[in-house]
Amino acid sequence: MTRRLDLIAGNGLLQRRAFLAGALLVPGAFAAQHARGEGLADAAWSRQPGAPPRGYGMPAPQESGVVRQTYTDTPGVAPGAAVSFTPLEKLRGRITPNGLHFERHHAGVPAVDPQQHRLVIHGLVSRPLSFGVNDLLRYPLVSRLHFLECSGNSLVNALPEPQQLPCGVIHGLVSCAEWTGVPLGLLLSEAGVSPEAEWGIAEGADGARMNRSIPLAKLREDALVALYQNGERLRPEQGYPLRLFLPGWEGNTSVKWLRRIELARAPVHSREETARYSDLVAGGRARQFTFEMGVKSVITHPSVGADLGPHGVYEISGLAWSGAGKIARVELSADAGASWSEAELEEPVLPRCLTRFRIAWRWDGAPAVLASRATDETGARQPERAEWLPRYSVAGEKYHYNAVQRWRVEASGAVRNTFA
Amino acid sequence: MTRRLDLIAGNGLLQRRAFLAGALLVPGAFAAQHARGEGLADAAWSRQPGAPPRGYGMPAPQESGVVRQTYTDTPGVAPGAAVSFTPLEKLRGRITPNGLHFERHHAGVPAVDPQQHRLVIHGLVSRPLSFGVNDLLRYPLVSRLHFLECSGNSLVNALPEPQQLPCGVIHGLVSCAEWTGVPLGLLLSEAGVSPEAEWGIAEGADGARMNRSIPLAKLREDALVALYQNGERLRPEQGYPLRLFLPGWEGNTSVKWLRRIELARAPVHSREETARYSDLVAGGRARQFTFEMGVKSVITHPSVGADLGPHGVYEISGLAWSGAGKIARVELSADAGASWSEAELEEPVLPRCLTRFRIAWRWDGAPAVLASRATDETGARQPERAEWLPRYSVAGEKYHYNAVQRWRVEASGAVRNTFA
Repeated sequence: MTRRLDLIAGNGLLQRRAFLAGALLVPGAFAAQHARGEGLADAAWSRQPGAPPRGYGMPAPQESGVVRQTYTDTPGVAPGAAVSFTPLEKLRGRITPNGLHFERHHAGVPAVDPQQHRLVIHGLVSRPLSFGVNDLLRYPLVSRLHFLECSGNSLVNALPEPQQLPCGVIHGLVSCAEWTGVPLGLLLSEAGVSPEAEWGIAEGADGARMNRSIPLAKLREDALVALYQNGERLRPEQGYPLRLFLPGWEGNTSVKWLRRIELARAPVHSREETARYSDLVAGGRARQFTFEMGVKSVITHPSVGADLGPHGVYEISGLAWSGAGKIARVELSADAGASWSEAELEEPVLPRCLTRFRIAWRWDGAPAVLASRATDETGARQPERAEWLPRYSVAGEKYHYNAVQRWRVEASGAVRNTFA
Repeated sequence: MTRRLDLIAGNGLLQRRAFLAGALLVPGAFAAQHARGEGLADAAWSRQPGAPPRGYGMPAPQESGVVRQTYTDTPGVAPGAAVSFTPLEKLRGRITPNGLHFERHHAGVPAVDPQQHRLVIHGLVSRPLSFGVNDLLRYPLVSRLHFLECSGNSLVNALPEPQQLPCGVIHGLVSCAEWTGVPLGLLLSEAGVSPEAEWGIAEGADGARMNRSIPLAKLREDALVALYQNGERLRPEQGYPLRLFLPGWEGNTSVKWLRRIELARAPVHSREETARYSDLVAGGRARQFTFEMGVKSVITHPSVGADLGPHGVYEISGLAWSGAGKIARVELSADAGASWSEAELEEPVLPRCLTRFRIAWRWDGAPAVLASRATDETGARQPERAEWLPRYSVAGEKYHYNAVQRWRVEASGAVRNTFA
């Protein structure tokens, strides 16, 4: 049962289609027991009718641990400030089910009445407009698969020591869904934007009245007034009944519970673009309006908390994305970056969408350091942590962390976060 | 505010990008109220912090009516026989959220213990194999966006009179998800299929031990042992912990709660491929093993139960799919098939996946009959109902209904199912 497996990089990375070549026995993964099927005893559930259908289904009780890690009311933070993380290490594919999409709230989840809620477009327009939800449903609705990422995602990796947290708690402020909504450019055309307008100030109906200034060009280009997520109406924590959605841009610009967009000559310089969501860079300066999320990737399987079984062949799998467009390639290393090899990308590769990558790896039982490095269609490539850190001041808030993530596989099979 | 809108077919169908040309006012859909935004009163939910995040989210309470219609224990049918329909008329985009994927059970939903459950591959193989769930998770996992359709979908339209049922109760035995699983061909390679094997008999662990005979070529080509749906583990009603998934083929061949595949020389001629899921055709004969689902489409918006508002421009939107590959085009008619015009297809158009189509329509207030007609990349086109019906015997069960659906818009704005 020995077969030649072409090595393509150091420390066991295998040719991309090694698995699909067939007859690659995963050790411990099978046992020949039932030569003719007669040994198949009927379990209890095979001897009686099961449960009837339900109007709205839920995951299996055995999967009750597949939930978002939630954090709320941190001391010193505004009431209702909260966050929840998508458990990336427990999911496969690229779609995030709606129940597990990450959340970041500045004043909790408001219980908006969709019958009363209005979206107003005003300011530097020739005709201010006010839309109810049912009005918007008369307009063309387009659907796009896109990731959404909080610009604070992965920031624990900027701490001096690597935190031994699940992959989803480090990187799980990113999720992916099919968003359906009205192209905002269409509504702006109806309102008649004045020539002097260059920005739109988007404001939510939550208790924080969270607002962000958005360049008009982006609002016209691909912004959506999103009403549906993965086929069904938005959920309350995603902005029900409607939110702004800006493909590829930092999460909080996609203002939830959107209630107005004011066209203006200049940005409003709100709290969320001065005290927060500005990048403190070297030399004590701050960089504002860094909207686009950088190119990034993370290995989700295996990751922290995984405990590999016996030595042998494993599939390494993860996610890559870029706010600038499509992922062009993802390179994998099993020797802490000494050598790299290209992973297979799951089709279709879509712009500003999570892309699943996969590669086969023969683990020989020695400690190894796994890393992934994505490049997008503009040629931008993920930096190493040592390259990323000096760009920002050491103290204060940082955003847009997109450095290469390394996982150390111990000889025991345990996986740990490492900066080495 | 008058603009020229190029008509592209009879009775008001407009050029594809009419909406996107801008300044196409949808009547009644706006009201200029807030010239400067000061009129925006804070609602109660904008004056206080909202709810904290939850581990697993649910739809808004106001959307509690967006559920599957369920039918169970029909008199004269086996215990546990049940069905639930995806409410197509309440969804947008192409993804079906997991809570609303259609169901068809022959003995209800078994409560399978994933720790005990095994998948056995046996029969004409050189090495019978038995896999637990954790064994399978060691294998490569691929993800594909595919529709799944019951071959009994839409059959009420074969009745002599048009039923005035919601679109989802007529056509909602079709759904679409991202399915992630192990390519079955890989497991078959490991088992070593004997040269004389030509079929695999797939059997579920439910109380019906539902089984179907599948040609080996399909099992090798693109069959998955599916473990995840839209990112998370399968739900009980979709086969938890694992199911067979056969892209483009009639739903019940994608055996849920899959417990064994027996390689064999010939099909087993089970109940589900003789008494059921055979097509009774003209002349008293039956056609067996009509696996592939035909090319099909349906307008979901507007559809039965909709009540159009004032006359004016509407977007007609719907879904198209084919078991043979990609949708090549969808034609729309607003005059009962007298003239046709091509709809816009939402990208990316993927093989064996739902494709959303859209077209602008100016309703002048007179009664109209809307219809959609899909053609797939093989050149196959949906038949008219009058073409479809004679192929099958009048009495008895029918399957694979894929004829053109017509909706009649009354002068009142009410929408009805029509065969005329």
